[in-house]
Amino acid sequence: MPFATRVHPGKKIRLSDIDPKANGGLEKADGEAQLEKLSLELGELQELLYAAGTHSLLVVFQGMDTAGKDGSIRAVFNHTSPLGQRISPFKVPTPLERDHDFLWRVHSQTPEKGMISIFNRSHYEDVLVVRVHELAPKAVWSKRFEHINNFERLLADSDTIIVKFYLHISPEEQEQRLLDREREVEKAWKLSAADWVERRSWSKYMTAYEEAIQRCTTSYAPWIVVPSDRKWFRNLAVAESLVETLRPYRKGWVDALTERGQAELTAIRAARGERGRRN
Amino acid sequence: MPFATRVHPGKKIRLSDIDPKANGGLEKADGEAQLEKLSLELGELQELLYAAGTHSLLVVFQGMDTAGKDGSIRAVFNHTSPLGQRISPFKVPTPLERDHDFLWRVHSQTPEKGMISIFNRSHYEDVLVVRVHELAPKAVWSKRFEHINNFERLLADSDTIIVKFYLHISPEEQEQRLLDREREVEKAWKLSAADWVERRSWSKYMTAYEEAIQRCTTSYAPWIVVPSDRKWFRNLAVAESLVETLRPYRKGWVDALTERGQAELTAIRAARGERGRRN
Repeated sequence: MPFATRVHPGKKIRLSDIDPKANGGLEKADGEAQLEKLSLELGELQELLYAAGTHSLLVVFQGMDTAGKDGSIRAVFNHTSPLGQRISPFKVPTPLERDHDFLWRVHSQTPEKGMISIFNRSHYEDVLVVRVHELAPKAVWSKRFEHINNFERLLADSDTIIVKFYLHISPEEQEQRLLDREREVEKAWKLSAADWVERRSWSKYMTAYEEAIQRCTTSYAPWIVVPSDRKWFRNLAVAESLVETLRPYRKGWVDALTERGQAELTAIRAARGERGRRN
Repeated sequence: MPFATRVHPGKKIRLSDIDPKANGGLEKADGEAQLEKLSLELGELQELLYAAGTHSLLVVFQGMDTAGKDGSIRAVFNHTSPLGQRISPFKVPTPLERDHDFLWRVHSQTPEKGMISIFNRSHYEDVLVVRVHELAPKAVWSKRFEHINNFERLLADSDTIIVKFYLHISPEEQEQRLLDREREVEKAWKLSAADWVERRSWSKYMTAYEEAIQRCTTSYAPWIVVPSDRKWFRNLAVAESLVETLRPYRKGWVDALTERGQAELTAIRAARGERGRRN
């Protein structure tokens, strides 16, 4: 039984119906043991993805401040090779980025075949923060859902596997985490006064997330809602969803890399033979 | 009366119905005088585009070998400032480009606000040469028309003005130009044996161009067919189409740059005043 909620295209979703405190009926120690296994398997799958070179993987992380975007990336991708993945954080757009369409900076960071791109925030900010704070008129942001779906379909048609995680925390848990950061000076760099201001827009954000998740869940680029009040469970649920998404490709990748290897060996033997004759 | 044929969305077009030798009833000297005026006006319009910073311009050039893509760019953009424009030639994709979706390399070259991007060949090669030489299966390239329209709409929604030129030459004129290049060693670098081989696929290319032009002519990104057997007339027709496209924006750009200028002057005077007080 999956730990996270996979959204289905065309289906209504209410975030308030999903419990951020869910633990899948597990104890923490149990969850951590399962995570270790899953992230090892993810490492294997990445190696196959890399060697086969037939697909790429795009993983999007979104969530309110403190929801654990950085933390999940650290915990889940700790048995994967850094050579095969690239993490792209999307912060406030630069002037040059702002002078292009909103997908320009994102498109440049999409993964080539064999690679994983991890988006820490993403093009979805352009229908989230932009909407909540009215940084663009509705006439502009409301067109973006379709642009996003078209863009993600373009990637999917080029064999990019897309998984999008919404890390779902409760406002109470967020408050706790912000206070924790305030108490520890080593963590306070992650904090800003703006975080407290942002909290006031919580319900506006929930509305924006619900619409984005609903309108941009497609068969080729689903959203997955991850209960995130418990960090260990959030990590487990993310890892499980990723592994479940990739497992069906395993056989094809093994076949593809075997084929590549055979071709390479044939070429190598031919080259060796030629050199032998020349000497 | 426009010298080039502006294609209309949803309308059939037969390239064989358009005369590549058309001269608009003009003599060459007359045409060259008109071109000079138009390219001066284009220079002025570019300055306004740049200063206003509200729009960008994307100009696509496509055509068979020797149709005059380089030549038109040289002749038409000779009174525009190189600071405000960027020419992107799209050649055979690199391995990294090939490992991304076909629009990846193109998207990175789109113009930011205030700028002109000129594409010497473009994303259309992926439904032209790729189709003619079966470099990808039909299932792949046939999906690209829609991807292209979606992509161009994304750009248009961000205030990019798009104009796409098909430089239309006859196979007889091409033969003449190839032979001319062969005769002059200084021109032969532009020639390759492949050019003669490509000629054999002429009618396949015409079919591919007709479908691309028809399916990817939209209100926001029209194709313009330019009779190109006479170089002077081709240049004139390109310049005229560009100027006609940009003229309606002139007033808005003047207003926008006046507004920007006013704001700047107010800020400058305030800064000067402050410094005065400090000293």
